[in-house]
Amino acid sequence: MRMSELAREAGLPTATVKYYLREGLLPEGQRTSATQAQYGEAHVERLRLIRALVGPAGQSLADTRRILQAIENPPSEYDLLGIAHQTVTPPRDPTLDLARARALLDRLGWDSATCAPDSVAALEEALRALTAGGFELSDEVIERYARAMMGVAADEVADVPTDSAEAAAQYVILGTVLVEPLLLSLRRLAQQSASARRFAP
Amino acid sequence: MRMSELAREAGLPTATVKYYLREGLLPEGQRTSATQAQYGEAHVERLRLIRALVGPAGQSLADTRRILQAIENPPSEYDLLGIAHQTVTPPRDPTLDLARARALLDRLGWDSATCAPDSVAALEEALRALTAGGFELSDEVIERYARAMMGVAADEVADVPTDSAEAAAQYVILGTVLVEPLLLSLRRLAQQSASARRFAP
Repeated sequence: MRMSELAREAGLPTATVKYYLREGLLPEGQRTSATQAQYGEAHVERLRLIRALVGPAGQSLADTRRILQAIENPPSEYDLLGIAHQTVTPPRDPTLDLARARALLDRLGWDSATCAPDSVAALEEALRALTAGGFELSDEVIERYARAMMGVAADEVADVPTDSAEAAAQYVILGTVLVEPLLLSLRRLAQQSASARRFAP
Repeated sequence: MRMSELAREAGLPTATVKYYLREGLLPEGQRTSATQAQYGEAHVERLRLIRALVGPAGQSLADTRRILQAIENPPSEYDLLGIAHQTVTPPRDPTLDLARARALLDRLGWDSATCAPDSVAALEEALRALTAGGFELSDEVIERYARAMMGVAADEVADVPTDSAEAAAQYVILGTVLVEPLLLSLRRLAQQSASARRFAP
């Protein structure tokens, strides 16, 4: 199909499709003349994925590029989650003292050696933000959150397809960025339902 | 204490403290002359809360102002969660068709009448993003996520203090914005731990 048709199929203005092409997010089509090229179904799918990432999932264009590159060049299964998370996590301050996060991982029995450093740093920052906001949670409550997330994660990891490294990488990366908004919206709605029951007049 | 001391206590540059004062995020101190004022411990705490919100929790200045106002003017307990979430959720397109989100809430037995419309819209957007990204989850998997979040939320709502409306509002709002980064970082680390176990060479 031609550029105008591709844009219509993907539900995007032609100018936006050209922009993604220039930025290298969308692979070139097959040139048919100096000014024209043909695009296929893979281009439509790629555009839908870009829309999902930059739209509701709120990824920046730079993060979207890194995510697409990681899907195309998948790491080995063993490192998959760590590298996938490294891909979708903004880089953290490498000099951050990770003592609180490491102590929590030890208490939980999660092997911090298998964890991506930026993910550990994200946990450290989240724990510090609670303290800084005067919202101190007990160890017991934090461990309750951790157990709930381990229940979620164990099911998710069991679902990762193993037929190809590309499929596994795509599953893990999209499962991270696209499921996070789902989880957070479900938590808020569950709180509202539970609150209505507790405080119903 | 004077402005310079307040800034030092809160770990912020004086210019930033003056900016928050001008923007109305920080209440005025007690004037002692035309150019000087005295500040107290409440000002230090407020600055720590602002830092936690605009820093790791990633709230904009406008959202931070809305959050602080909601803590100062708490709604009734019954509406607390909905209004708190409305406060911390960016406004959504009011013409969005919420059919998929409503159908899910029905299947879960959560009363959508007690849910804030913007929270339902956030769920609808998250569900659509999964489809748009080609990451279609089965009803069974989505309901598994919902049950996990209901487990988390039921514990959280049971913990809401009922001694004052201010305390309840502060608990709920900070519990939303400060706990979300904690939950997401725990999910990523739990995935990495579970993945290391499944795919260990």
